[in-house]
Amino acid sequence: MLKVLILAGGSGTRFWPLSRRSRPKQLLALEGDRSLLRATFERLAPLVPPRDIWVCTTEALESAVAEQLAEVPRSQILAEPQGRNTAPAIGWSLVSMPREARSAPVAVLPADHRVADGDGFRKILATAAEIAASSERVLTLGVRPRWAETGYGYLEVGQLEDRLSGLRRVIRFVEKPGAESARRFVASGDYLWNAGIFVFRGTALLRHLERCQPEITAGLERIAADPASLTEAYAAMPSISIDHGVMEKLDDLGTLPLDCGWSDLGSWGALWDVLDKDGSGTAARGQVVDFGGGGNLLWADEGTIAVLGVKDLVVVRTGDAVLVVPRERAQEIRRVVSELEERGRDELL
Amino acid sequence: MLKVLILAGGSGTRFWPLSRRSRPKQLLALEGDRSLLRATFERLAPLVPPRDIWVCTTEALESAVAEQLAEVPRSQILAEPQGRNTAPAIGWSLVSMPREARSAPVAVLPADHRVADGDGFRKILATAAEIAASSERVLTLGVRPRWAETGYGYLEVGQLEDRLSGLRRVIRFVEKPGAESARRFVASGDYLWNAGIFVFRGTALLRHLERCQPEITAGLERIAADPASLTEAYAAMPSISIDHGVMEKLDDLGTLPLDCGWSDLGSWGALWDVLDKDGSGTAARGQVVDFGGGGNLLWADEGTIAVLGVKDLVVVRTGDAVLVVPRERAQEIRRVVSELEERGRDELL
Repeated sequence: MLKVLILAGGSGTRFWPLSRRSRPKQLLALEGDRSLLRATFERLAPLVPPRDIWVCTTEALESAVAEQLAEVPRSQILAEPQGRNTAPAIGWSLVSMPREARSAPVAVLPADHRVADGDGFRKILATAAEIAASSERVLTLGVRPRWAETGYGYLEVGQLEDRLSGLRRVIRFVEKPGAESARRFVASGDYLWNAGIFVFRGTALLRHLERCQPEITAGLERIAADPASLTEAYAAMPSISIDHGVMEKLDDLGTLPLDCGWSDLGSWGALWDVLDKDGSGTAARGQVVDFGGGGNLLWADEGTIAVLGVKDLVVVRTGDAVLVVPRERAQEIRRVVSELEERGRDELL
Repeated sequence: MLKVLILAGGSGTRFWPLSRRSRPKQLLALEGDRSLLRATFERLAPLVPPRDIWVCTTEALESAVAEQLAEVPRSQILAEPQGRNTAPAIGWSLVSMPREARSAPVAVLPADHRVADGDGFRKILATAAEIAASSERVLTLGVRPRWAETGYGYLEVGQLEDRLSGLRRVIRFVEKPGAESARRFVASGDYLWNAGIFVFRGTALLRHLERCQPEITAGLERIAADPASLTEAYAAMPSISIDHGVMEKLDDLGTLPLDCGWSDLGSWGALWDVLDKDGSGTAARGQVVDFGGGGNLLWADEGTIAVLGVKDLVVVRTGDAVLVVPRERAQEIRRVVSELEERGRDELL
């Protein structure tokens, strides 16, 4: 009975130069040989048949997404006229689903995350679906923190409500913390990483959306009344995330703890964390000559990378560009992309 | 009256991935837009007309060299059947010159060095030619050391023989010294860098060669008697440098001090030393996005290089490869080339 909505509209730049506007992260095979989108779909397959899967993406990516998910009915691949962040995307996707589908529990999840333990993941999703089916409750999955990560948001959680499922109430959302706070959060046991994976009955979420984001609901009603107004109405909706726009405003948001090797793969550094590494701690892809000092991520998409005497670096080579950045600073490469935008180097974006 | 022999047969690997077998260092434009070979030729032009210039190169490079030095008579571009180091190359080139040319002073110089002050360089060459013309003396030009370089050989010199020219006798050759010795050498004022630039009457050098390297002379005589034996006779000659094979064995080798911004450009690091740099100490060529910490050499022969948060690195990008190495370790890249040879990656060599 669980329906799934995969959010596949991201145009992230955090894997530049490999990721491009026309080939964003979710379409990349960062681990193994399947794209993150395809891996997400296959992870769901044992639990959710393709006819119960919807995908929200952008017009630019629509055909690539459809090609990768040939099993999903074409009408269920929804293309936003433009990206307006996750609250409009989720709202519009829900109203685009048939009434009986959105009355069922719906899991909303990003197309570009990593999950090592698919069984564990599906088990939690199924449990969340059961809880959501029998209530108006919105659930967010929280990842048990494995280290004091400062790159994730955290959920502060309350007392155990149900021993069997592990259900707890979310007390508050915490933005990316400093190192000291992160250590405290992890030590306390009262915090989970915010994974951005939600389960709710679609109709329940739409009621919350109406209360919290009436402008979005108004836009969705306008689109429903006049489908030709889609582009204009979409552009007029506030661009806001579902976290900020709805989840943080809920009184009884629930959470289930996820313990399945999750990563948002938010940077080349985060990818290095999860890739297989050699004895020196270097992860390599493609043609590489490695006389480095270890701890490197060497990614030769085209051509050959040779390193000597460097360590803890990310070196990525594509047919037209190369990036060199310390692993610990890989999250800053947005600056490189911005600079290329300013220079009008569209062919590299 | 001065004749010149340019040694342009090198197949150095120290500028990999930019330098390749078919495009070695002397054919690269490492400073400005002329190749080092062409710059060497043009540096000589005010002093030596093209008809007095000979070039020794390899068969593989012959046509590229001839193309770059169109002014030099084609018959004076000599192609060795194989590289046997500088002693055979110089001996064979001298016997290939007309008798009256090799009776004159001949300057032998590498095609791939850098000289900032062409006037000063020509002045020293002319002085050396005068001394050589009126004696049997062999001269080597020694560079006044500007720092305690451990990558060069040194010449220990004796007392001033002639105040006007600065002529001194070379007491001994010193191989690349350790840091401590190098500091002592520079502080003493009694040492010069060995630049590998020689001036002598060709006939005099051939007499020294006969005494020091009779096998080479025998090979040259065989070639003279039977030109068809060139390839075989060449292969049979000992592969030895003119420094080891002849210069170090001379009793009265003379030297003139050179003070003209000389560098052998022996590595990417040495190139960085002489290139124009920005305020952060970074030298860049080609399409570069630089958020680095300074002191980098960023060389984009094709495509774009983006760096962030790295310093004192060499990053070189060609159409098929990229090299990342700390500037201070750039002289070790021979290891990378050897590894590529072992893997049979001939297309990268």
